[in-house]
Amino acid sequence: MNYIKKRRLFTPGPTPLLAEAYFDGFLNPMHHRKEEFKSLFINTQKALQEVFKTRNDLLLLSSSGSGAMEAALTNLLMPGDRAVIGVAGKFGERWVELAQTFGAQATVVEVPYGESVDPFAIGEALERTPQAAAVFVQATETSTGAAIDLESLGRIVARHKETVLVVDAITGIGTMPIETDAWGLDIVIGGSQKAFMAPPGVAMISVSEKAWARIESCKRPRYYFNLAGERKKQKAGESAFTPAVSVIQALNTSLTFILKQGIDNVVANAALQAGVMRAALASWSMALFPRSSGNAITAFRTPEGVDPAKVIAVMRDRFGAHIIGGQGSMKGKILRISHMGYCDFLETLGLIGCLELALLEAGAPIRLGSGTAAALEYYRSNTGSDH
Amino acid sequence: MNYIKKRRLFTPGPTPLLAEAYFDGFLNPMHHRKEEFKSLFINTQKALQEVFKTRNDLLLLSSSGSGAMEAALTNLLMPGDRAVIGVAGKFGERWVELAQTFGAQATVVEVPYGESVDPFAIGEALERTPQAAAVFVQATETSTGAAIDLESLGRIVARHKETVLVVDAITGIGTMPIETDAWGLDIVIGGSQKAFMAPPGVAMISVSEKAWARIESCKRPRYYFNLAGERKKQKAGESAFTPAVSVIQALNTSLTFILKQGIDNVVANAALQAGVMRAALASWSMALFPRSSGNAITAFRTPEGVDPAKVIAVMRDRFGAHIIGGQGSMKGKILRISHMGYCDFLETLGLIGCLELALLEAGAPIRLGSGTAAALEYYRSNTGSDH
Repeated sequence: MNYIKKRRLFTPGPTPLLAEAYFDGFLNPMHHRKEEFKSLFINTQKALQEVFKTRNDLLLLSSSGSGAMEAALTNLLMPGDRAVIGVAGKFGERWVELAQTFGAQATVVEVPYGESVDPFAIGEALERTPQAAAVFVQATETSTGAAIDLESLGRIVARHKETVLVVDAITGIGTMPIETDAWGLDIVIGGSQKAFMAPPGVAMISVSEKAWARIESCKRPRYYFNLAGERKKQKAGESAFTPAVSVIQALNTSLTFILKQGIDNVVANAALQAGVMRAALASWSMALFPRSSGNAITAFRTPEGVDPAKVIAVMRDRFGAHIIGGQGSMKGKILRISHMGYCDFLETLGLIGCLELALLEAGAPIRLGSGTAAALEYYRSNTGSDH
Repeated sequence: MNYIKKRRLFTPGPTPLLAEAYFDGFLNPMHHRKEEFKSLFINTQKALQEVFKTRNDLLLLSSSGSGAMEAALTNLLMPGDRAVIGVAGKFGERWVELAQTFGAQATVVEVPYGESVDPFAIGEALERTPQAAAVFVQATETSTGAAIDLESLGRIVARHKETVLVVDAITGIGTMPIETDAWGLDIVIGGSQKAFMAPPGVAMISVSEKAWARIESCKRPRYYFNLAGERKKQKAGESAFTPAVSVIQALNTSLTFILKQGIDNVVANAALQAGVMRAALASWSMALFPRSSGNAITAFRTPEGVDPAKVIAVMRDRFGAHIIGGQGSMKGKILRISHMGYCDFLETLGLIGCLELALLEAGAPIRLGSGTAAALEYYRSNTGSDH
């Protein structure tokens, strides 16, 4: 029989779209040099400041998150400049690739996939790296789900007056508490297609005064990713180049939803889905892959002899549920499921049930219903009556 | 915490919309007297004939299903004409109300809510009702979910050359096998907002030659619901009055989806959701309410002391899942969940999990996870590997 299968993304970006956001650009086409778009643009920046918990400048770049990563590095570092990079997976490796590409000298603090970079190890690396212009880390490493202790890291880097702390929070913002100003995070990067419930195409980057001072003294040639140039334009509600208008409109609408919901509630929602998913994992005796996992992603190893690719295929073909495997050195070894953005409990429960059937079919010893029972108990124990 | 709750209808119409169908009228506005709409209209009728498994005329009425019920009765029966009506719930009672309103003499074959009308009881009533012009029944009684044996009924009524068999299949079509021509169902009525995955606003009615003969001899005054007038117009792709253009466009698109999926697969999909839901019910020791239940709706009594209204409120407020209570004499006594149309397994599983929490909170003795375990076992035992 050919049963109905609704298409659902449980992937770590793109994530499920907030429909009213998606259609806003379509229903209200705008030209990017007109007043109505300028005011929407400024409104979007203000809403993002609330989400990032910052009074720093908040710029929008029409690029993927990786574009904003390049912008941060090339605006801060001249060839030969020193930096410390925390690496816990594929996106940490991307910081290293960027440093190599643009001729910066990196002291790399690397941990195996699945572990978290220790803020104190970064502190030690800073001692060994005189005049480090910047520290680059991931809030959560998308390839494994591991989270870093940003609050401690902020305190440590703040002691170095010349060192700018750059946080790739692309999967972190909206899934874990991030206090940009209170924790001294100089540059924080996000992406529209993660917890923001919008399509891909726009990155956001907050920049502190400490970071601006460094950026202004850095004379590397730059054109598209010129943050100082964008700063001037964007204060007036414009951008230097044609922005991804419809994505920004979508982002603006989803930010209205997010702020109405409350950013702390959006984080709590990701934490609920992650908690529920992990309660199921534990009931299957499958270990959560990263030791210190954020809420953005649940990554886990399948049992010996169970091919993740088979599980992914069954989930897709039989249930319409799109999950994803490992990246980098974890390719073919783990499964990853996103809890970012517009997710809810009912579909997480449905996902867990389908996953039991898929894991069983791929050879895992699963008692059907055990994961859901654990998930429901988790929900009962961890949500008050005020939900 | 204010968790994200996606709004989901598990109600017996309106049902979940097929998004691409919903937007078709918006994306391609049409005027109803132009050629492009005429050809879409004729195409819609043809697709409906495939779904209804009939070569009879298939007319579209811009009304709810009740409008088509009135059209059937008023086009067939003059004041004083006799008819037999099967009543198993609120919509059977509607046939009786229509007969009373329009002065027909009805022999009523009534069973308590939750039971099904026996085709042989209808046959006996026909013997007691000389010159009965028509028999009126529900394929599935929406208020209870009870289904009738249409194949047997068709065989019985066919023996009466002057009696037209009228089937309200509003919740039956697309959820149970219905062979309009093979079973001799003279008039079959459907509604856009049920298994057709489209918004409310359009009813469809198939009319056999036997029914047309009766309609042509029936001289009751009629204006909006004039089936013979519609027949003439609709053969040319028009309707007598302004049709619900956007709903018909949505219906046309969802019919493309339904026929691509295969009508038998759409029925099997409803049967899967119903089977899965009922396996959960059985694991909770809650009895399915109607003895002979179709796949359209699962209706069940909550245990002693468990208020259905409380369960409905928790499902809505905490999980965004809209289910519904009883109608007619079952008001406040049962819960009803729809499996019509654009439903899938993942969300039925999620619904079952949420329902366990809601039932538990309302005081039912539920072991969390038991329903999902039963649902997953049902899926495994009842679906082949060719899904």
